[in-house]
Formats: sequence, C-alpha cells, structure tokens
Amino acid sequence: MNRVKNFNAGPAALPLPALERARDEFLDFAKSGMCVMEHSHRGKEYEAVHDEAIALLRELLGVPDTYDVLFVQGGASQLFAQLPMNLVEKGRSADYVVTGAWGEKALSEAKAATAMLGASVRVAGTTGTGEGKEKSYVRAATAKDLQLAPDAAYVHVTSNETIHGVEYDVTPARPFPDTGKVPLVADMSSDFLWKPLDVSRFGVIYAGAQKNIGPSGVVVLIVRKDLVAAGRKDIPKIFQLRTPAENKSLYNTPPTFGIYMVRNVLAWLKGLGGLPAMEKRNRDKAAKLYGVIDANASFYRCPVEKESRSVMNVVFRLPSEADEERFVKEAKAQGMVGLKGHRSVGGIRVSAYNAVEPAWIDALCEFMQAFAKRG
Amino acid sequence: MNRVKNFNAGPAALPLPALERARDEFLDFAKSGMCVMEHSHRGKEYEAVHDEAIALLRELLGVPDTYDVLFVQGGASQLFAQLPMNLVEKGRSADYVVTGAWGEKALSEAKAATAMLGASVRVAGTTGTGEGKEKSYVRAATAKDLQLAPDAAYVHVTSNETIHGVEYDVTPARPFPDTGKVPLVADMSSDFLWKPLDVSRFGVIYAGAQKNIGPSGVVVLIVRKDLVAAGRKDIPKIFQLRTPAENKSLYNTPPTFGIYMVRNVLAWLKGLGGLPAMEKRNRDKAAKLYGVIDANASFYRCPVEKESRSVMNVVFRLPSEADEERFVKEAKAQGMVGLKGHRSVGGIRVSAYNAVEPAWIDALCEFMQAFAKRG
Repeated sequence: MNRVKNFNAGPAALPLPALERARDEFLDFAKSGMCVMEHSHRGKEYEAVHDEAIALLRELLGVPDTYDVLFVQGGASQLFAQLPMNLVEKGRSADYVVTGAWGEKALSEAKAATAMLGASVRVAGTTGTGEGKEKSYVRAATAKDLQLAPDAAYVHVTSNETIHGVEYDVTPARPFPDTGKVPLVADMSSDFLWKPLDVSRFGVIYAGAQKNIGPSGVVVLIVRKDLVAAGRKDIPKIFQLRTPAENKSLYNTPPTFGIYMVRNVLAWLKGLGGLPAMEKRNRDKAAKLYGVIDANASFYRCPVEKESRSVMNVVFRLPSEADEERFVKEAKAQGMVGLKGHRSVGGIRVSAYNAVEPAWIDALCEFMQAFAKRG
Repeated sequence: MNRVKNFNAGPAALPLPALERARDEFLDFAKSGMCVMEHSHRGKEYEAVHDEAIALLRELLGVPDTYDVLFVQGGASQLFAQLPMNLVEKGRSADYVVTGAWGEKALSEAKAATAMLGASVRVAGTTGTGEGKEKSYVRAATAKDLQLAPDAAYVHVTSNETIHGVEYDVTPARPFPDTGKVPLVADMSSDFLWKPLDVSRFGVIYAGAQKNIGPSGVVVLIVRKDLVAAGRKDIPKIFQLRTPAENKSLYNTPPTFGIYMVRNVLAWLKGLGGLPAMEKRNRDKAAKLYGVIDANASFYRCPVEKESRSVMNVVFRLPSEADEERFVKEAKAQGMVGLKGHRSVGGIRVSAYNAVEPAWIDALCEFMQAFAKRG
C-alpha cells in the first residue's frame, strides 16, 4: 500500500485508523453479517453508531444541553438557503458578514431564500476589495468593519474561508464578532473541531463533514433549541430544523455510512487527546508552513494579513504561475498531492486539516525550502 | 465471514461483489494512494467514477438524450418538496395520486411547498380506504380512480409503495396512469431498476438509492430537459433542478462515496445481464414468495390485490401478532433478518430487491412452508 500525502481542500484526507476500522469490518459490521450501509437506520446496530457520533460531538465540544446536535444532508450549500428559511420571520432581516467566496455564496442564497418568504438579508460588513477578477479578501472582519442591526434575526459569518485562507479566532486580534443578544451563526465547514470552542457564543454552528471530520454528504448542525422552536412553520417539513431535532436526525433515512465514518473520525480524535491536543497539533503544523513562507519572503508570498491567517488552509503565491505549476508537479512526484489553489484565485493552497499528519507537513516544508533555494 | 440473508426494506442488502470491490480498494483507490472518499470531487479519479455511474444509468435504462440524469441529496423526502418548488408555477396546480403512505407524504410536502410559492396541488385520486389506524391501501390506481386535470403541471405517482407492498406496472392490469400530455412524475425509490422501463413515458423519475442501487444519501433524478429549463427561478439556486443539470451534479460537493457505491452496484447489475435479466430474477423470486403465501392461504394472507402485488416488497399477515413475532424470531435464528413489517402496519415484509439472492428466497420459502405446517 502506497498512501500519499493528501493536502486536498475537501473532500480531504481522513485518519488512517478511521479508514482501516471501516475496511476491516466492511463486510461484517459488529458481527452482524452485513456492511453498516446495509443496516436499517432504525435498527439497534446502526442506532448505536448514530448515538455515539452525536455523543462524541457533545463531549468533544462540550455542547450545552440547550443545543441540538443534528445531522443533515445537502452540504453547507443547502444550509445557506435552509437556515434563513427557518430563522428569518416575515418582514425581518438577517445580517451577513462577508470575508471570502463562501460568505458571498451564503449571502446570495440567503437573499433568494428570504425573498421567497417575504423577509430579507443585508450585508453588515465585508472585507472584500476590488471587483470581478480583482476581487480579493485578505482578512477577517473586525468591529470597525461592521454595522450590525440590533434587531437582526442573526449575524452570519464564515469561520474559515477555505479558498482565501482567511480565518477568525486564530489570533486574539481577530475574534468572532461580538453580536450582543443577536445570535451568531457560523459556517465552520472548513475549520470545525480544529480546536476547543465555546459553543455558547453561537446560535448556530454548521459544517459539511468533508474537510475535518468525515466524507462528503453529511453536515453537522449545532443549533440553540430556542431557535429551533421559534423557526418558521410555513415551509416544507423536510426543511424545518425542528424535523431532525424532534426525530434525532432520523426523520428520513440519513446518510448512514457517512455518519458511521464521522463516528470513526471522532473516536480517533478523542483517542489522540481531543480538541486541546488537536489545537496544538494544528497550530504547530501551520506555524511550520508560515515559517517557511516568511523565511523565504522573496520567493513565497502569503496574501493574508498575519492576524487572519488560516490554520486550516495555508495559501501562498510563487513568483510566477509557471513556478506554481512546477511546484505542484514536483511535489506530486514526491507523493504530495492536492496543493493547487482554487481555480478562482490560483496559487498554492495547503489544506492542513486535522487528519493531515505533522510528518507530511515536515516533508512539505523541506520540499518548499529546497524548491525556494533552487528558485 | 458470516453474511446474513438480509431482507431489510432500506437501507438494504447490497451485492457482495460491489461491497468486496469497495473493501479491496478502500485504502488505495485506483492506485491513487487514498480512499475514494478522500479524493477531490473535481479530480480526474473521482470524476471517472461519477461519469461512469451516469453512463451506466443511461445505458441500462436507455435514457433518451432529452433527459438529464442527476445525483442529488436529501433523500426522496426532500424531492417531495423540491420538485413542486421547481415545477408548479405561481397560480398553477399539480395532481397527486395516492396509493400508500409514501404517496401521502409526497402530497403533504407538495402542499407546503406550493403554498409557500403561491401555487397548489390537488388529489387526483386515491385508493385508500378507512381512516387513522384503519387506513389501508391494497391496490394501485386505475383510470377509473382518477380525475386528472388537463392543465395540471404534472401527475405524481408512487411507483411502489414500500410499506403497503403495492406496485404499478407489475401486471398489464395496473399500468402507470395515462396522463396524456401532462408529465408523469414517479417516485421509484423502492423499485428503481427492477426491470426495463420506457423512460420516455415520464417527465421525472426519482429514486433514493438505498433500496435497489446503493447506500443512503444519494438520490437519482431523471428529468426531461424541457422541464428543467422551464423550472422556477424564484427559489434558491441549490433547490433549482437546473443547478445540478448545468453542473453535472457537481455544483457543490456530492456524496462521492455513495455515488461510487452506486457505480459498483450498477456495474454488477450490468454484468449480470442488465435489466432484462434482473426482471426475470425478480419476478421469479416474487412468484416463489407469493406462491408459498397462496398455497398456505389458511395461514398466510397477503392483503394486496393480485394485480398490484409488489415484486419488491412482499407483505403478508399471519393468524396472530404472536405468530408474526415468533416468525421473525425463528427466521432470525436461521440467519434471515429484516422481515418485520413497517411499524405503522405490522405483519411481515420481505424486501426482495435486486441484490437479494434467489437462494435466500429459496431458504425463506422453505422456512415459510415449515413454519406454516407447524402452525
């Protein structure tokens, strides 16, 4: 077996022990004589996995009892529409803070979703500069960037901008916005569970699994119970947050194998020491990468302001696009894949999610040093 | 390894070769050094799988070029809402034919979805009798049951009612309704690909994968291109059918591993001789089961009218609930699982989807004969 060093942005590398566990019991899960994906979602064998996944999320994050922990489908992209459908009453508005391409998408879908239901959204702040092809985002928002409406249904932020490499709450200088009594809603798809988090600061946290915690097709949704209860009822049942909340995410058939993989990943994460250990591991990896970039500032250039640099997605440019192409190609020849930046912005992107091994980062840093030296 | 005879209603048994293929390359897919679920959905390795799954669906069913073949998320339950959101213009209505519990759910969600958007739905016919706990469905609808509106946006049917064991198009006496120029929309979740099908008779076919063709979390949607093009635009992009249609179902991250499993199942199905071979296999299995039921009519009783008896879900009752409990328990002791009827109707249900081996049915029939004899 020849496993590569996988720096994909998502779907992304998964921990080898979580994969091996799945492989080893693939045809005979829990001595049941079938694959976990052949089990009824209402049978006791699958339900034990489902319950364990939820319990692990609650334990790792210390989720208060006043929050529901749900599994839903459709990706974070569906929640871009589904959350405002639930949470913005007729005639009301919600505030959006845009710090990258995913924030733009969330805003755009929220506009369509609320327009359909007689409500609205507004931009409370953005750190974007330029237009069209020149549009760029290089930092998280600060209090000075924002004009929050005190009566907004919620304030939406993108915790980590996967494409632009901009993240909140990495340094004390760029905390999540203080929204007072207005619920803070965060898309944490690409930085969920990278470190401990005070869940009580949020009204809603949501995350597609395919970056840090599992395969694509599963979304984790952590939502304050009072927001679920107050949610709109004039939308189809399948889109109401109370539907998974009242049915333990088993209203209709969930993506059982995906949730099983999430369980495997969470069990691995707990075994490694939980979120405090993960934070150290991730900060060390990021420090090494940014260290090489800054030590070779005449060759590598990270466009992101230091206070907002993402621990999960480290983006940088080389002197020319030809250099970048050569970088990706030579890295690949050494078993390091997934390094090409997003097609919309170009450059290099190192996604260093939880499952990315420190040894892979060491190998990559060594490669980067040598590559810069050769020029 | 001790594989059981799995008669689950869904998620359900998958073909062993499709599972073994996944197990064998779980850690190193296509010699890429990673699991298929760790691949980017925009990389060439995954894309080959994605394209092959679509091509196999087109080939097996002979899907005309005038149709899109899409993968979406959220289960058929989400399409209960999403299809009317797309297909019923403001001020218009769609017709629903209800022949069981799933038809009821489709109708209920379509009501909410259209009410939200200034449109409506109506019941064009139902075969249900009784109310509440006594509600029963024992047959597919005939032309006499229906009052179709000539200006309806579409007519919706549930091809196979998984809970009630009622199926269209098994016998010539119960064909799919003739809807003239009005598009026929069919939920085929529990009988998709059980036999050849004239796709051109339908405007839309949709099916959750977790019965006949894969794991849960993937839905196949086959839709006439003109209906996609005419779909509403005043809904969020993620819910518009044109979004997957214009992006080859890669607008946002699809459930890649689920689609990979679907590909494996379809490749197995093709290898076995495609849909004509599958039809023979499935009709033979069902004939054996109904044969035992009818040959022991004083002990087993199938409530479904002969013309509408499902080939996929064979439901029957025993003299008492205690007998039924004993039946399930003794079968389980012999390695036959998943036989308990749906909690809403009780009794026994044998789900005999494509992957259920004829030998399992033979073993079950033998057990049924002996059980009836003992009484």
